[in-house]
Amino acid sequence: MNNFNFYSPTYFVFGKERENEAGKFVKRFAGTRVLIHFGSGSVQKSGLLDRVKASLLAENIYFTELGGVVPNPRSGLVYTGIEICKREKIDFILAVGGGSAIDSAKAIAVGALYDGDFWDFYEGKHQAKNALAVATILTISAAGSEGSSGSVITHENGMLKRAYGGDFMRPVFSILNPELTCSLPAYQTACGSTDMMAHVMERYFTNTKDVEITDRLSEAILLTVIKETPKALANPNDYEARANLMWAGMVAHNDTCGVGRDSDWSSHQMEHELSGLYDVAHGAGLAVMFPAWMKYVMNHDIMRFAQFAVRVWGCEMNFQHPEKTALQGIERYEQFMTSIGMPIRFSQLGAKAEDIPILVKTMGLGNRTQGSFVKLTEGDIRKIYELAV
Amino acid sequence: MNNFNFYSPTYFVFGKERENEAGKFVKRFAGTRVLIHFGSGSVQKSGLLDRVKASLLAENIYFTELGGVVPNPRSGLVYTGIEICKREKIDFILAVGGGSAIDSAKAIAVGALYDGDFWDFYEGKHQAKNALAVATILTISAAGSEGSSGSVITHENGMLKRAYGGDFMRPVFSILNPELTCSLPAYQTACGSTDMMAHVMERYFTNTKDVEITDRLSEAILLTVIKETPKALANPNDYEARANLMWAGMVAHNDTCGVGRDSDWSSHQMEHELSGLYDVAHGAGLAVMFPAWMKYVMNHDIMRFAQFAVRVWGCEMNFQHPEKTALQGIERYEQFMTSIGMPIRFSQLGAKAEDIPILVKTMGLGNRTQGSFVKLTEGDIRKIYELAV
Repeated sequence: MNNFNFYSPTYFVFGKERENEAGKFVKRFAGTRVLIHFGSGSVQKSGLLDRVKASLLAENIYFTELGGVVPNPRSGLVYTGIEICKREKIDFILAVGGGSAIDSAKAIAVGALYDGDFWDFYEGKHQAKNALAVATILTISAAGSEGSSGSVITHENGMLKRAYGGDFMRPVFSILNPELTCSLPAYQTACGSTDMMAHVMERYFTNTKDVEITDRLSEAILLTVIKETPKALANPNDYEARANLMWAGMVAHNDTCGVGRDSDWSSHQMEHELSGLYDVAHGAGLAVMFPAWMKYVMNHDIMRFAQFAVRVWGCEMNFQHPEKTALQGIERYEQFMTSIGMPIRFSQLGAKAEDIPILVKTMGLGNRTQGSFVKLTEGDIRKIYELAV
Repeated sequence: MNNFNFYSPTYFVFGKERENEAGKFVKRFAGTRVLIHFGSGSVQKSGLLDRVKASLLAENIYFTELGGVVPNPRSGLVYTGIEICKREKIDFILAVGGGSAIDSAKAIAVGALYDGDFWDFYEGKHQAKNALAVATILTISAAGSEGSSGSVITHENGMLKRAYGGDFMRPVFSILNPELTCSLPAYQTACGSTDMMAHVMERYFTNTKDVEITDRLSEAILLTVIKETPKALANPNDYEARANLMWAGMVAHNDTCGVGRDSDWSSHQMEHELSGLYDVAHGAGLAVMFPAWMKYVMNHDIMRFAQFAVRVWGCEMNFQHPEKTALQGIERYEQFMTSIGMPIRFSQLGAKAEDIPILVKTMGLGNRTQGSFVKLTEGDIRKIYELAV
């Protein structure tokens, strides 16, 4: 097991109607001037935003608003948010929405205390030391940003998608009401579950040995998502299924599954190029890239993939031919993805084989490698994309 | 799933030689005048205390010391600690040791900011609002106090064992170096693992339905402890086994296994009476009480016990007679306890059947009930003790 630090200080407020406590918690965490940050009109139409505002008003907390976050959140709105924060002396950002609203809020929070361009952080030119307090009211179970330190922003100048994070960007509190996710369409629900599974799997396929506790916790989350997602799809108002998925999504990405070992993240990186080029949903892109990556790297550690097959997918171990068990696990992943309506090949996603050179080039790997489980060269990346066709 | 709050803000610093960073982390969490609190001479003899002091000196942090914490930590030393804190204007307590040192430190921390008697909190007469910062350097994997909000203290006046806790008592940081646990004798190692398992099981046997994620995470911890404990016993210096156990012990009790459902805790309560009367190790007492409790309440929810048997102990499900599977799980728990050197009956513990009336009377249940999975009357408690004979 590697040495590690684990820090997940977010106060999680989970359950029915808990968004009505937003004001109470903003006060508890010393917020006095709040920017409410959100995406589309759905949080307005549903009345959620009104309930949140009423809760802030009840505590006499000043607030202003900034909506308009889009999926794969853009730098433009971040600049606007930073300007508002500086002008209005905002000390607290309350994100209402999914991962995009939260990631955008984190970027505003870190940019608001910096005199330069917030993009410096995302480009790796500068390290931040602090940020405004961020809190979240989550409406989509997927990204895990409600409990993570990270944030991904796309710069409109060149559509570069870059990540930045730090402990000071972890939400001070996150309100998770599963009821708010019941209105999610089936496709988005399935994308969310795929994203959660990917967050676990990126950490599960590792070269670090003897991290049984982290393995088992990871498998626990995967087993839960596999069991609960079909229930949420069959009955969107199944509160219990939605609740299990919502908490699983947080634990999948607050690094519970990562402690003590190296993580990979190359499937995420390959997906970023896909969604950059085609603007497809992140979860759908992951559903396509993961099986291709798994097939390509499987031989690097057959027994690891066999464990995945047996413990997560309930495959019977083939002791004579472990590689058959390993492959069966990957096939079961694909079958599960298909069963929840996810694509597993380029064509189902609308991606094209002839664009592979563009995808590889945009990643810009050059002579460097990508990933940790297997260090992938540009040539490897191309072959994995080809397996996904 | 029940509504819940989850808050585990402790910064965990895990791995080899991390105790040398104690000074750095005290500084990071704004400690300036530190009370180092510890138990027996073993932390002195091993050189651990010297390394910790060197680390504080390197950061120019003032410190004073208070040793002498005993298992089932006593009120007397807490009073002494509170007096030192007030006199020396201590703002930070660094506990070095196992659950006893940490629990004692938490009691001092909450008492130091109170003008009255700290026992008021433990007797339920008064609610605290704050406490001095507490941090820990853990040397025994067992109690989980390094990541929990609670503390158990025994008052010398009547030997009353009482618990108190609050979020303000959670350690600000905890250093977990598995190497420090390699010198633990086999019996204490096994007691620690039993305690961890009990922390999970008290939360696992619940009437709350559909908490799959919490079930799975709980099972993950149990499976890890079952796999790693025999390795640590066979080879005390097995770092990987010690590391898995150390992290499992934290996750077992920071409420990861409790969220979204009711917990029971009656086996702990019955054990408290046992260890109060005979001064036996907490883990050993739990190993005796849990199977008796399980056999007594099993019929309340056969399928829950069957799930425990199948998922945790690898029993094959008997679909015609689930009660046989349920019972098999309990037997497997007993067999495992025996295999790691734990007692499973009164006689092995040195407890006597004729003392049962005393145990029941000391619990002082009267007309109230104990537990949540099954609400136990005094009569039930007596019968469970009898099953443990």
